[in-house]
Amino acid sequence: MRRIVLATRNEHKVGELRAILAELGVAVDLVGVSEYPDVPDVAETELSFSGNALLKAVAVAEATGLPAIADDSGICVDALNGMPGIFSARWAGKHGDDEANLDLLLAQVSDVPEEHRGAKFVCAAALAEPGGRRVVEEGRIEGTLLRARRGQGGFGYDPIFQPHGYQVSTAELSSEEKNRISHRRRAFAALAPRLPV
Amino acid sequence: MRRIVLATRNEHKVGELRAILAELGVAVDLVGVSEYPDVPDVAETELSFSGNALLKAVAVAEATGLPAIADDSGICVDALNGMPGIFSARWAGKHGDDEANLDLLLAQVSDVPEEHRGAKFVCAAALAEPGGRRVVEEGRIEGTLLRARRGQGGFGYDPIFQPHGYQVSTAELSSEEKNRISHRRRAFAALAPRLPV
Repeated sequence: MRRIVLATRNEHKVGELRAILAELGVAVDLVGVSEYPDVPDVAETELSFSGNALLKAVAVAEATGLPAIADDSGICVDALNGMPGIFSARWAGKHGDDEANLDLLLAQVSDVPEEHRGAKFVCAAALAEPGGRRVVEEGRIEGTLLRARRGQGGFGYDPIFQPHGYQVSTAELSSEEKNRISHRRRAFAALAPRLPV
Repeated sequence: MRRIVLATRNEHKVGELRAILAELGVAVDLVGVSEYPDVPDVAETELSFSGNALLKAVAVAEATGLPAIADDSGICVDALNGMPGIFSARWAGKHGDDEANLDLLLAQVSDVPEEHRGAKFVCAAALAEPGGRRVVEEGRIEGTLLRARRGQGGFGYDPIFQPHGYQVSTAELSSEEKNRISHRRRAFAALAPRLPV
Protein backbone atom coordinates (compact mmCIF):
# COMPACT_ATOMS: atom_id res chain seq x y z
CA MET A 1 0.00 0.00 0.00
CA ARG A 2 1.22 3.45 -0.87
CA ARG A 3 2.12 5.54 2.16
CA ILE A 4 0.53 8.99 2.30
CA VAL A 5 1.28 11.50 5.05
CA LEU A 6 -1.61 13.51 6.46
CA ALA A 7 -0.46 16.99 7.48
CA THR A 8 -1.93 17.03 10.98
CA ARG A 9 -0.77 16.17 14.49
CA ASN A 10 -4.38 15.64 15.57
CA GLU A 11 -4.90 11.88 15.96
CA HIS A 12 -8.70 12.37 15.95
CA LYS A 13 -8.36 13.66 12.42
CA VAL A 14 -6.06 10.87 11.29
CA GLY A 15 -8.51 8.27 12.59
CA GLU A 16 -11.52 9.97 11.03
CA LEU A 17 -9.82 10.25 7.66
CA ARG A 18 -8.71 6.61 7.74
CA ALA A 19 -12.36 5.63 8.23
CA ILE A 20 -13.49 7.94 5.43
CA LEU A 21 -10.89 6.62 2.97
CA ALA A 22 -11.73 3.01 3.86
CA GLU A 23 -15.41 3.74 3.25
CA LEU A 24 -14.50 5.30 -0.10
CA GLY A 25 -12.58 2.13 -1.01
CA VAL A 26 -9.21 3.91 -1.11
CA ALA A 27 -6.46 1.54 0.08
CA VAL A 28 -3.56 3.68 1.34
CA ASP A 29 -1.25 3.57 4.36
CA LEU A 30 -2.29 6.87 5.96
CA VAL A 31 -0.05 8.21 8.72
CA GLY A 32 -0.07 11.47 10.64
CA VAL A 33 2.85 13.87 10.39
CA SER A 34 3.75 13.09 14.03
CA GLU A 35 5.56 10.06 12.53
CA TYR A 36 7.99 12.55 10.98
CA PRO A 37 9.14 14.66 13.93
CA ASP A 38 11.53 16.74 11.83
CA VAL A 39 8.79 18.26 9.70
CA PRO A 40 8.39 21.86 10.85
CA ASP A 41 5.00 23.36 11.67
CA VAL A 42 3.51 25.45 8.91
CA ALA A 43 1.87 28.78 9.73
CA GLU A 44 -1.54 28.99 8.04
CA THR A 45 -0.96 32.35 6.43
CA GLU A 46 -3.35 31.98 3.50
CA LEU A 47 -6.81 33.52 3.64
CA SER A 48 -8.79 30.61 2.19
CA PHE A 49 -9.35 26.97 3.15
CA SER A 50 -7.90 25.85 -0.19
CA GLY A 51 -4.83 28.05 0.16
CA ASN A 52 -4.05 26.76 3.65
CA ALA A 53 -4.67 23.11 2.73
CA LEU A 54 -2.28 23.40 -0.22
CA LEU A 55 0.32 25.21 1.89
CA LYS A 56 0.35 22.37 4.41
CA ALA A 57 0.31 19.53 1.86
CA VAL A 58 3.17 21.04 -0.14
CA ALA A 59 5.29 21.67 2.97
CA VAL A 60 4.85 18.09 4.21
CA ALA A 61 5.45 16.54 0.78
CA GLU A 62 8.67 18.52 0.35
CA ALA A 63 9.88 17.72 3.88
CA THR A 64 9.11 13.99 3.80
CA GLY A 65 9.59 13.14 0.14
CA LEU A 66 6.23 11.37 0.26
CA PRO A 67 2.83 12.25 -1.18
CA ALA A 68 1.02 14.32 1.39
CA ILE A 69 -2.57 15.29 1.92
CA ALA A 70 -3.84 18.08 4.10
CA ASP A 71 -7.16 19.60 4.83
CA ASP A 72 -8.28 22.87 6.23
CA SER A 73 -11.79 23.08 7.50
CA GLY A 74 -13.95 25.24 9.62
CA ILE A 75 -17.39 26.53 10.41
CA CYS A 76 -18.78 29.49 8.48
CA VAL A 77 -21.57 31.37 10.26
CA ASP A 78 -23.90 33.49 8.14
CA ALA A 79 -24.41 36.14 10.85
CA LEU A 80 -20.62 36.52 11.14
CA ASN A 81 -20.09 37.00 7.38
CA GLY A 82 -18.74 33.46 7.08
CA MET A 83 -16.43 33.62 10.09
CA PRO A 84 -14.84 31.86 12.05
CA GLY A 85 -13.99 30.26 8.65
CA ILE A 86 -10.24 29.68 8.29
CA PHE A 87 -9.82 30.98 11.86
CA SER A 88 -12.06 28.24 13.34
CA ALA A 89 -9.25 26.37 15.12
CA ARG A 90 -7.84 29.58 16.65
CA TRP A 91 -11.06 31.55 17.09
CA ALA A 92 -10.52 32.20 20.80
CA GLY A 93 -6.93 33.24 20.09
CA LYS A 94 -4.81 30.12 20.45
CA HIS A 95 -4.73 27.03 18.28
CA GLY A 96 -6.80 24.00 19.10
CA ASP A 97 -8.64 25.00 22.26
CA ASP A 98 -11.95 23.46 21.12
CA GLU A 99 -13.85 24.34 24.29
CA ALA A 100 -12.81 27.99 24.30
CA ASN A 101 -13.54 28.33 20.56
CA LEU A 102 -17.01 26.85 20.94
CA ASP A 103 -17.86 28.91 24.04
CA LEU A 104 -16.75 32.09 22.31
CA LEU A 105 -18.81 31.43 19.18
CA LEU A 106 -21.93 30.62 21.23
CA ALA A 107 -21.50 33.84 23.23
CA GLN A 108 -20.93 35.97 20.14
CA VAL A 109 -24.17 34.86 18.49
CA SER A 110 -26.26 34.61 21.66
CA ASP A 111 -28.46 37.54 20.53
CA VAL A 112 -28.80 36.29 16.94
CA PRO A 113 -32.38 35.11 16.27
CA GLU A 114 -33.27 31.70 14.81
CA GLU A 115 -33.77 32.88 11.25
CA HIS A 116 -30.19 34.15 11.06
CA ARG A 117 -28.42 31.16 12.63
CA GLY A 118 -27.50 29.49 9.34
CA ALA A 119 -24.00 28.01 9.17
CA LYS A 120 -21.98 25.52 7.21
CA PHE A 121 -18.96 23.32 7.72
CA VAL A 122 -16.47 23.67 4.85
CA CYS A 123 -13.44 21.50 4.12
CA ALA A 124 -10.73 21.90 1.50
CA ALA A 125 -8.70 18.72 0.88
CA ALA A 126 -5.36 19.06 -0.89
CA LEU A 127 -2.86 16.59 -2.32
CA ALA A 128 0.77 17.39 -3.06
CA GLU A 129 3.39 15.05 -4.50
CA PRO A 130 7.09 15.89 -3.98
CA GLY A 131 8.06 18.18 -6.83
CA GLY A 132 4.85 17.18 -8.58
CA ARG A 133 1.12 17.47 -8.71
CA ARG A 134 -1.03 19.70 -6.51
CA VAL A 135 -4.80 19.16 -6.36
CA VAL A 136 -7.41 20.72 -4.09
CA GLU A 137 -11.15 19.99 -3.71
CA GLU A 138 -13.86 21.42 -1.42
CA GLY A 139 -16.79 19.86 0.40
CA ARG A 140 -19.47 21.43 2.59
CA ILE A 141 -22.51 20.64 4.73
CA GLU A 142 -25.19 23.21 5.52
CA GLY A 143 -27.11 23.57 8.76
CA THR A 144 -27.86 25.84 11.70
CA LEU A 145 -26.11 26.85 14.91
CA LEU A 146 -27.60 25.52 18.13
CA ARG A 147 -27.74 27.58 21.36
CA ALA A 148 -25.99 25.04 23.57
CA ARG A 149 -23.92 21.89 23.23
CA ARG A 150 -25.65 18.65 22.31
CA GLY A 151 -23.98 15.24 22.17
CA GLN A 152 -20.63 13.75 23.07
CA GLY A 153 -19.26 12.67 19.69
CA GLY A 154 -17.09 14.43 17.12
CA PHE A 155 -14.82 17.35 17.96
CA GLY A 156 -14.49 21.07 17.33
CA TYR A 157 -17.83 22.72 16.72
CA ASP A 158 -19.74 19.45 16.21
CA PRO A 159 -21.84 19.83 19.42
CA ILE A 160 -23.43 23.11 18.26
CA PHE A 161 -24.06 22.34 14.56
CA GLN A 162 -27.31 20.79 13.34
CA PRO A 163 -27.21 19.70 9.69
CA HIS A 164 -30.23 20.50 7.51
CA GLY A 165 -32.66 17.57 7.54
CA TYR A 166 -31.54 16.38 10.99
CA GLN A 167 -32.96 16.99 14.48
CA VAL A 168 -29.63 16.25 16.16
CA SER A 169 -26.21 17.86 16.31
CA THR A 170 -23.23 16.42 14.45
CA ALA A 171 -21.93 15.36 17.87
CA GLU A 172 -25.04 13.18 18.31
CA LEU A 173 -24.48 11.31 15.06
CA SER A 174 -22.58 8.03 15.11
CA SER A 175 -19.15 8.44 13.56
CA GLU A 176 -20.36 6.26 10.65
CA GLU A 177 -23.31 8.58 10.02
CA LYS A 178 -21.19 11.69 10.37
CA ASN A 179 -18.52 10.34 8.02
CA ARG A 180 -21.21 9.65 5.43
CA ILE A 181 -22.45 13.26 5.21
CA SER A 182 -19.63 15.44 6.50
CA HIS A 183 -17.79 18.24 4.71
CA ARG A 184 -14.55 16.25 5.12
CA ARG A 185 -16.17 13.19 3.52
CA ARG A 186 -17.37 15.27 0.61
CA ALA A 187 -14.01 16.96 0.08
CA PHE A 188 -12.05 13.68 0.24
CA ALA A 189 -14.62 11.89 -1.94
CA ALA A 190 -13.84 14.52 -4.58
CA LEU A 191 -10.10 14.16 -3.99
CA ALA A 192 -10.01 10.32 -3.81
CA PRO A 193 -9.85 9.62 -7.57
CA ARG A 194 -6.72 11.80 -7.73
CA LEU A 195 -4.76 10.03 -4.98
CA PRO A 196 -1.67 7.97 -5.96
CA VAL A 197 -2.33 4.29 -5.18
CA MET B 1 -31.68 74.28 24.07
CA ARG B 2 -33.52 71.24 22.88
CA ARG B 3 -32.84 68.13 24.98
CA ILE B 4 -31.81 65.03 23.06
CA VAL B 5 -31.20 61.68 24.71
CA LEU B 6 -28.23 59.62 23.56
CA ALA B 7 -29.00 55.91 23.78
CA THR B 8 -25.89 54.82 25.65
CA ARG B 9 -24.88 54.32 29.27
CA ASN B 10 -21.23 54.82 28.31
CA GLU B 11 -20.19 58.25 29.62
CA HIS B 12 -17.07 58.19 27.38
CA LYS B 13 -19.41 58.15 24.41
CA VAL B 14 -21.64 60.92 25.75
CA GLY B 15 -18.61 63.15 26.31
CA GLU B 16 -17.13 62.40 22.91
CA LEU B 17 -20.40 63.13 21.14
CA ARG B 18 -20.90 66.39 23.07
CA ALA B 19 -17.50 67.51 21.80
CA ILE B 20 -18.30 66.44 18.23
CA LEU B 21 -21.67 68.25 18.20
CA ALA B 22 -20.12 71.40 19.67
CA GLU B 23 -17.46 71.31 16.97
CA LEU B 24 -20.19 70.91 14.35
CA GLY B 25 -21.95 73.97 15.79
CA VAL B 26 -25.02 71.99 16.91
CA ALA B 27 -26.41 73.47 20.14
CA VAL B 28 -28.37 70.77 21.93
CA ASP B 29 -28.64 69.57 25.53
CA LEU B 30 -27.26 66.07 25.08
CA VAL B 31 -27.78 63.63 27.95
CA GLY B 32 -27.06 59.93 28.29
CA VAL B 33 -29.88 57.47 28.86
CA SER B 34 -28.55 56.87 32.40
CA GLU B 35 -30.56 60.02 33.27
CA TYR B 36 -33.71 57.97 32.55
CA PRO B 37 -33.30 54.87 34.70
CA ASP B 38 -36.64 53.39 33.67
CA VAL B 39 -35.67 52.99 30.03
CA PRO B 40 -35.09 49.28 29.47
CA ASP B 41 -31.97 47.97 27.76
CA VAL B 42 -32.44 47.11 24.11
CA ALA B 43 -30.97 43.89 22.69
CA GLU B 44 -29.06 44.62 19.50
CA THR B 45 -30.76 41.99 17.40
CA GLU B 46 -30.30 43.58 13.99
CA LEU B 47 -27.50 42.47 11.70
CA SER B 48 -26.32 45.90 10.54
CA PHE B 49 -24.96 49.02 12.22
CA SER B 50 -27.88 51.05 10.83
CA GLY B 51 -30.47 48.56 12.00
CA ASN B 52 -29.10 48.49 15.53
CA ALA B 53 -28.70 52.27 15.75
CA LEU B 54 -32.33 52.77 14.68
CA LEU B 55 -33.54 50.07 17.07
CA LYS B 56 -31.90 51.86 20.02
CA ALA B 57 -32.95 55.38 19.00
CA VAL B 58 -36.58 54.35 18.49
CA ALA B 59 -36.73 52.48 21.82
CA VAL B 60 -35.32 55.45 23.75
CA ALA B 61 -37.53 57.99 21.97
CA GLU B 62 -40.65 55.97 22.70
CA ALA B 63 -39.67 55.36 26.34
CA THR B 64 -38.68 58.96 27.14
CA GLY B 65 -41.00 60.96 24.87
CA LEU B 66 -37.92 62.93 23.75
CA PRO B 67 -35.95 62.96 20.51
CA ALA B 68 -33.26 60.32 20.79
CA ILE B 69 -30.07 59.62 18.93
CA ALA B 70 -28.13 56.42 18.95
CA ASP B 71 -25.12 55.10 17.21
CA ASP B 72 -23.77 51.69 16.55
CA SER B 73 -20.18 51.44 15.55
CA GLY B 74 -17.44 48.91 15.27
CA ILE B 75 -14.30 47.80 13.59
CA CYS B 76 -14.49 45.84 10.33
CA VAL B 77 -11.39 43.78 9.55
CA ASP B 78 -10.80 42.76 5.93
CA ALA B 79 -9.19 39.41 6.82
CA LEU B 80 -12.22 38.57 8.98
CA ASN B 81 -14.75 39.35 6.22
CA GLY B 82 -15.68 42.60 7.93
CA MET B 83 -15.99 41.18 11.44
CA PRO B 84 -16.08 42.00 14.40
CA GLY B 85 -18.47 44.55 12.80
CA ILE B 86 -21.71 44.83 14.75
CA PHE B 87 -20.28 42.36 17.25
CA SER B 88 -17.33 44.63 18.14
CA ALA B 89 -18.50 45.48 21.67
CA ARG B 90 -19.18 41.81 22.49
CA TRP B 91 -16.47 40.16 20.41
CA ALA B 92 -14.98 38.24 23.34
CA GLY B 93 -18.45 37.12 24.39
CA LYS B 94 -19.72 39.68 26.87
CA HIS B 95 -20.65 43.29 26.31
CA GLY B 96 -18.19 46.08 26.85
CA ASP B 97 -15.03 44.26 27.93
CA ASP B 98 -12.71 46.43 25.81
CA GLU B 99 -9.51 44.74 26.92
CA ALA B 100 -10.73 41.22 26.23
CA ASN B 101 -12.18 42.26 22.85
CA LEU B 102 -8.93 43.88 21.76
CA ASP B 103 -6.76 40.98 22.97
CA LEU B 104 -8.95 38.48 21.15
CA LEU B 105 -8.85 40.39 17.87
CA LEU B 106 -5.06 40.77 18.03
CA ALA B 107 -4.66 37.04 18.70
CA GLN B 108 -7.05 36.04 15.90
CA VAL B 109 -5.13 37.98 13.26
CA SER B 110 -1.64 37.35 14.65
CA ASP B 111 -0.73 35.22 11.59
CA VAL B 112 -2.24 37.66 9.07
CA PRO B 113 0.51 39.36 7.04
CA GLU B 114 0.81 43.14 6.61
CA GLU B 115 -0.81 43.30 3.19
CA HIS B 116 -4.05 41.81 4.54
CA ARG B 117 -4.37 43.87 7.73
CA GLY B 118 -6.74 46.46 6.28
CA ALA B 119 -9.59 47.53 8.56
CA LYS B 120 -12.09 50.32 8.98
CA PHE B 121 -14.09 51.87 11.76
CA VAL B 122 -17.76 52.27 10.79
CA CYS B 123 -20.45 54.23 12.61
CA ALA B 124 -24.18 54.46 11.95
CA ALA B 125 -25.88 57.43 13.64
CA ALA B 126 -29.66 57.36 13.98
CA LEU B 127 -32.27 59.89 15.07
CA ALA B 128 -35.79 59.00 16.19
CA GLU B 129 -38.49 61.40 17.30
CA PRO B 130 -41.39 60.04 19.42
CA GLY B 131 -43.99 58.78 16.97
CA GLY B 132 -42.15 60.63 14.24
CA ARG B 133 -39.14 60.78 12.02
CA ARG B 134 -36.38 58.22 11.77
CA VAL B 135 -33.11 59.07 10.04
CA VAL B 136 -29.86 57.13 9.82
CA GLU B 137 -26.46 58.07 8.34
CA GLU B 138 -23.12 56.23 8.14
CA GLY B 139 -19.50 57.38 8.50
CA ARG B 140 -16.26 55.45 8.18
CA ILE B 141 -12.49 55.78 8.46
CA GLU B 142 -10.09 53.39 6.73
CA GLY B 143 -6.77 52.15 8.08
CA THR B 144 -4.78 49.10 9.14
CA LEU B 145 -4.61 46.89 12.21
CA LEU B 146 -1.48 47.18 14.33
CA ARG B 147 0.15 44.17 16.02
CA ALA B 148 0.18 45.61 19.55
CA ARG B 149 -1.42 48.45 21.49
CA ARG B 150 -0.13 51.98 20.97
CA GLY B 151 -1.26 55.01 22.92
CA GLN B 152 -3.42 55.75 25.94
CA GLY B 153 -6.27 57.76 24.44
CA GLY B 154 -9.65 56.77 23.06
CA PHE B 155 -11.40 53.52 23.93
CA GLY B 156 -12.38 50.23 22.35
CA TYR B 157 -10.10 49.26 19.49
CA ASP B 158 -8.43 52.70 19.19
CA PRO B 159 -4.99 51.47 20.38
CA ILE B 160 -4.64 48.96 17.51
CA PHE B 161 -6.03 51.00 14.59
CA GLN B 162 -3.83 53.21 12.43
CA PRO B 163 -5.78 55.48 10.05
CA HIS B 164 -4.52 55.78 6.48
CA GLY B 165 -2.17 58.77 6.19
CA TYR B 166 -1.12 58.60 9.85
CA GLN B 167 1.88 56.98 11.56
CA VAL B 168 0.11 56.75 14.91
CA SER B 169 -2.84 54.82 16.32
CA THR B 170 -6.19 56.48 16.99
CA ALA B 171 -5.30 56.16 20.70
CA GLU B 172 -2.25 58.39 20.10
CA LEU B 173 -4.28 61.21 18.54
CA SER B 174 -5.48 64.03 20.74
CA SER B 175 -9.24 63.82 21.26
CA GLU B 176 -9.60 66.97 19.11
CA GLU B 177 -7.70 65.35 16.24
CA LYS B 178 -9.60 62.09 16.59
CA ASN B 179 -12.96 63.86 16.68
CA ARG B 180 -12.05 65.66 13.48
CA ILE B 181 -11.51 62.51 11.41
CA SER B 182 -13.38 59.73 13.17
CA HIS B 183 -16.17 57.54 11.84
CA ARG B 184 -18.45 58.93 14.58
CA ARG B 185 -17.66 62.49 13.53
CA ARG B 186 -18.42 61.66 9.92
CA ALA B 187 -21.70 59.90 10.75
CA PHE B 188 -22.89 62.70 13.04
CA ALA B 189 -21.76 65.39 10.60
CA ALA B 190 -24.12 63.75 8.10
CA LEU B 191 -26.89 63.50 10.70
CA ALA B 192 -26.44 67.00 12.20
CA PRO B 193 -28.55 68.93 9.65
CA ARG B 194 -31.48 66.61 10.46
CA LEU B 195 -31.44 67.13 14.25
CA PRO B 196 -34.33 69.06 15.86
CA VAL B 197 -32.97 72.27 17.38
